[in-house]
Amino acid sequence: MKKIAIIMGSGSDLPVAEKAVSVLQKLNIPFVVRVMSAHRTPEAVASFARGARDEGFGTVIAIAGKAAHLAGFIAAQTRLPVIGVPVKSPDLGGLDALLATVQMPSGVPVATVAIDGAANAAWLAARILAAADDGLAARLEDEARLMAGDVEAKDREVRGKWEEQK
Amino acid sequence: MKKIAIIMGSGSDLPVAEKAVSVLQKLNIPFVVRVMSAHRTPEAVASFARGARDEGFGTVIAIAGKAAHLAGFIAAQTRLPVIGVPVKSPDLGGLDALLATVQMPSGVPVATVAIDGAANAAWLAARILAAADDGLAARLEDEARLMAGDVEAKDREVRGKWEEQK
Amino acid sequence: MKKIAIIMGSGSDLPVAEKAVSVLQKLNIPFVVRVMSAHRTPEAVASFARGARDEGFGTVIAIAGKAAHLAGFIAAQTRLPVIGVPVKSPDLGGLDALLATVQMPSGVPVATVAIDGAANAAWLAARILAAADDGLAARLEDEARLMAGDVEAKDREVRGKWEEQK
Amino acid sequence: MKKIAIIMGSGSDLPVAEKAVSVLQKLNIPFVVRVMSAHRTPEAVASFARGARDEGFGTVIAIAGKAAHLAGFIAAQTRLPVIGVPVKSPDLGGLDALLATVQMPSGVPVATVAIDGAANAAWLAARILAAADDGLAARLEDEARLMAGDVEAKDREVRGKWEEQK
Amino acid sequence: MKKIAIIMGSGSDLPVAEKAVSVLQKLNIPFVVRVMSAHRTPEAVASFARGARDEGFGTVIAIAGKAAHLAGFIAAQTRLPVIGVPVKSPDLGGLDALLATVQMPSGVPVATVAIDGAANAAWLAARILAAADDGLAARLEDEARLMAGDVEAKDREVRGKWEEQK
Amino acid sequence: MKKIAIIMGSGSDLPVAEKAVSVLQKLNIPFVVRVMSAHRTPEAVASFARGARDEGFGTVIAIAGKAAHLAGFIAAQTRLPVIGVPVKSPDLGGLDALLATVQMPSGVPVATVAIDGAANAAWLAARILAAADDGLAARLEDEARLMAGDVEAKDREVRGKWEEQK
Amino acid sequence: MKKIAIIMGSGSDLPVAEKAVSVLQKLNIPFVVRVMSAHRTPEAVASFARGARDEGFGTVIAIAGKAAHLAGFIAAQTRLPVIGVPVKSPDLGGLDALLATVQMPSGVPVATVAIDGAANAAWLAARILAAADDGLAARLEDEARLMAGDVEAKDREVRGKWEEQK
Amino acid sequence: MKKIAIIMGSGSDLPVAEKAVSVLQKLNIPFVVRVMSAHRTPEAVASFARGARDEGFGTVIAIAGKAAHLAGFIAAQTRLPVIGVPVKSPDLGGLDALLATVQMPSGVPVATVAIDGAANAAWLAARILAAADDGLAARLEDEARLMAGDVEAKDREVRGKWEEQK
Repeated sequence: MKKIAIIMGSGSDLPVAEKAVSVLQKLNIPFVVRVMSAHRTPEAVASFARGARDEGFGTVIAIAGKAAHLAGFIAAQTRLPVIGVPVKSPDLGGLDALLATVQMPSGVPVATVAIDGAANAAWLAARILAAADDGLAARLEDEARLMAGDVEAKDREVRGKWEEQK
Repeated sequence: MKKIAIIMGSGSDLPVAEKAVSVLQKLNIPFVVRVMSAHRTPEAVASFARGARDEGFGTVIAIAGKAAHLAGFIAAQTRLPVIGVPVKSPDLGGLDALLATVQMPSGVPVATVAIDGAANAAWLAARILAAADDGLAARLEDEARLMAGDVEAKDREVRGKWEEQK
Repeated sequence: MKKIAIIMGSGSDLPVAEKAVSVLQKLNIPFVVRVMSAHRTPEAVASFARGARDEGFGTVIAIAGKAAHLAGFIAAQTRLPVIGVPVKSPDLGGLDALLATVQMPSGVPVATVAIDGAANAAWLAARILAAADDGLAARLEDEARLMAGDVEAKDREVRGKWEEQK
Repeated sequence: MKKIAIIMGSGSDLPVAEKAVSVLQKLNIPFVVRVMSAHRTPEAVASFARGARDEGFGTVIAIAGKAAHLAGFIAAQTRLPVIGVPVKSPDLGGLDALLATVQMPSGVPVATVAIDGAANAAWLAARILAAADDGLAARLEDEARLMAGDVEAKDREVRGKWEEQK
Repeated sequence: MKKIAIIMGSGSDLPVAEKAVSVLQKLNIPFVVRVMSAHRTPEAVASFARGARDEGFGTVIAIAGKAAHLAGFIAAQTRLPVIGVPVKSPDLGGLDALLATVQMPSGVPVATVAIDGAANAAWLAARILAAADDGLAARLEDEARLMAGDVEAKDREVRGKWEEQK
Repeated sequence: MKKIAIIMGSGSDLPVAEKAVSVLQKLNIPFVVRVMSAHRTPEAVASFARGARDEGFGTVIAIAGKAAHLAGFIAAQTRLPVIGVPVKSPDLGGLDALLATVQMPSGVPVATVAIDGAANAAWLAARILAAADDGLAARLEDEARLMAGDVEAKDREVRGKWEEQK
Repeated sequence: MKKIAIIMGSGSDLPVAEKAVSVLQKLNIPFVVRVMSAHRTPEAVASFARGARDEGFGTVIAIAGKAAHLAGFIAAQTRLPVIGVPVKSPDLGGLDALLATVQMPSGVPVATVAIDGAANAAWLAARILAAADDGLAARLEDEARLMAGDVEAKDREVRGKWEEQK
Repeated sequence: MKKIAIIMGSGSDLPVAEKAVSVLQKLNIPFVVRVMSAHRTPEAVASFARGARDEGFGTVIAIAGKAAHLAGFIAAQTRLPVIGVPVKSPDLGGLDALLATVQMPSGVPVATVAIDGAANAAWLAARILAAADDGLAARLEDEARLMAGDVEAKDREVRGKWEEQK
């Protein structure tokens, strides 16, 4: 199975990155976690991105905040799908990172997910791998059913709470 | 090769959808174009989404404006990768569609691209297919070089314009 | 009397939903509280919405955050009035949920109230029921007088505070 | 059948108001159209709002832009459901009117629809009347099917366009 | 000397109102503090506003949050200058109240100050009174010099801090 | 009667300034129109502001766009009431000028009106002068009645339009 | 004298870039104009940026829209001052480019100017060069006086216009 | 070497200013820290700005929040490069200060950095000085390598963390 690369722009993004890790571990998808900065170690990023396909990566998840260039910078140097996770900032709430990640020019797309949405970045990466992997696709259907089950359980609990009152 | 579905929420989104069509035609990727509304024909959307994998689709592109639910609604009913294109509105400039598309809850990701960025949705779909298709990956590398060449040609033209003046 | 359905998209929206419950209890309006997700249990939502009128519901209150599709999704599957409550998010303050709830296309309206405004959703539901229920209408007039009385009491308290100083 | 009042805050809002008129005429719902300003003729607004229920109105639609107080001001003086339509402005795109209409305090709700969404205000008013009117409810189901039919027709047209090319 | 009325829309705005009180007390400007709601006690507001000039008020300060209609509603019913103070909300940071206060239609102006800027509302009211009161104008000049002195003292302290280090 | 100064930050703001001129001419309030820039002729602005009271001005209207410092800069150098008019920009719609005008620090208030709201700046200036001028106050009451009359005339026209249809 | 590099991310930014050219030509500052894309020709950008100091450039002006990474990408690869010009977009008015340009992480600053503010980028570049060039500093003082003169001429014209009327 | 002036608009901005101080101390660049307010001590600001070049300053850093005029006001009175640091506010997150700082008119540029980005203001000032100082330029290259080294160390740590798990 292809591997997923989780790249964060700063060590401070680790709590966000761990949400992606949890999802990939649950799905038994191999992954690597890296810290590389589009602005402080641009050559490392470029070198990684150019070699990513050959090293067996199928998708790259890039996590960055503020003027979040990391995902776009990686997308400029590889033809793999690149998923961007905008990180919430204390001032503008992540709107800056969201716009800096999603508003890419034609030809260099970044698949952007919600602010701090690293879990969804992992789910999206799994869907991309599953497009050519029936086993993983079946796993994703199972997970969707589990999530539905959690909602249904919560529904019974909440529904019962007020019915009992009557 | 898997097909791409281009779903627009309203016939008025056709000019945006055509930008995706152009890219897919250039790359010889098979596709289908549909009009289906999360709010006016929800059952058609649900039915399509649930059967999409079995009908040979590899990725779904959903194009919608304002309270843009189309992409998220499709992503709720299939495990295929779903790409969302927020459409510009005359009042809020597409910020409404962008947030309604990208801020999805955990487990149901939408790969969001720029406002009116249907071309990039097609480029992203191509990258997803190319993850398991070396020939398409090579085509994308060629296209990237062509785009670079266009920039370089423009660079020579602009650069020369002011050098001649001196 | 018709019942009110309070649907929340996630169990985490319970504190918001309880504000609607309090108002309905005070007005002796029958209600049901449910957890159903447009993205995780879409079929449950659709099934509920299609049968809501026949099950005696007069209005549906839908509470959801971020890319808040719940209210619009319900409004697409029933002709009952649907009230949407956008939930505040930690990043964009609920602007995302507000726009995703209110900017609905023509023909499928959602009656949107303030961010986290579940109490007002209940007051609005009561007004809708009261349009055809003179007793409830009289109750609402009483409540309006009580609210006015609270303001007047506060006015006397505050006014007195500084007059005494002089 | 109860009547609908369509109140606009300025004569310049007439093109928006006419979108509501069209829907109500199509549904054979009786209505009155008025121009009254929360800021220039507040007493007329207050007088109208206080008497609206006794004059046979079932719902009030208020259309206003910028610091849009009209809907909230009416909602403060009647217990009928009040629907607010924020009007697009040339500078802030209607975000000002949207927030001024929707962010109402507890106890005085305004059912807010999309920016310039007067058609949806009429559809919402129809749903409110239909809650106690099975004939109108059936009419709304018919209209929903017609709207679905329009989307399906457009779907066939668009789908065919590219299938023929192949 | 004319009196200043400080009207807040809710008792919860008291901490904001107290900032205006402090300034007026320092300047020995007579004032009254009231709680009146445009939405819960609209008749009290209207009655107050219509009689304000005759009761000796020279300016009205209106403090309100969210869909802040209080200042505009007062300005509609008196020809006195009305100063609006938008109150910060927990979700949109006061942008809602700011736009609802400042974007008034022609002929009914509200003199809007910063979010939570009740102190400045009082300073502005003092300037308005001082336009026809040379003694108060001189007091304001003194206060401006005191404020400048505070900045100068802070400047010396900060400047010295790093000069000593060298 | 005190004069009103209308200061615009750039000659391109003239169409906005003329809206203030029209109101002042209608009210027979003496005024002066000037072009002075906080950034290009700061000394002229400072000199004007410091002498404005002695030259018989009662209020200053400052009109400026983008990083609109003009009103605040004048307010820093006089104790007269200063009214700020934010000018719409082609990119951010005037939100930049609005925030740069209204968010002033404590002690240096700017009475801010709507984006491009120069007419309201004049109406507000008139209210300020009228606080100490019963004749002008009576004129303003007359104008308010005229504005109400315009709305009432429009109301009759619109109301009749659809009543005739029936 | 050091040269200024004007880099635009796309040929479509040329009308914006020409505003910078005009200022530099007026000041006789040598410059080069280039088209290079952070996303389509990243290696060209990196190569240029790393060699810029050695090739005699004193400052780099980077012009880009939407997810504007160009300025930050250059700033990551040179220690020269880099000035970023966010370009207005048709959807979000340039807010996206502004945030993507200005919100840079510590250590890699971009000197950001107004949306479409390429003229100011040139004026800023001139100030940077003038810090070590008394002749250029004197030229800038002359230009400031000329700009003041233009304002003063406009002031006389506007002032006279209404004085004559009286 | 030229000195850097760090001017803050209020003593409360000191924690932000200290981030600039730390960077300048690390780089051995001489600096002065001042508190001066565009609105409370405008003459002190003007006097300082006009004399700054003659007193040996090479660049001015201005730190201010809300309607942040300080940087623009200084830029209007000197031809030195002026760097503006918008300060985060509790209500609008610093968007007000950002727009008030960056959207300057042509001819009077402010080099704007990120919200609360005083460290980057210092790094930018260092780049400006380094344009004519090869020793400082070399120091900046060293610092860039150190920052890269920090990222690389963090990369090894994070990378190892999950590799060990396997």
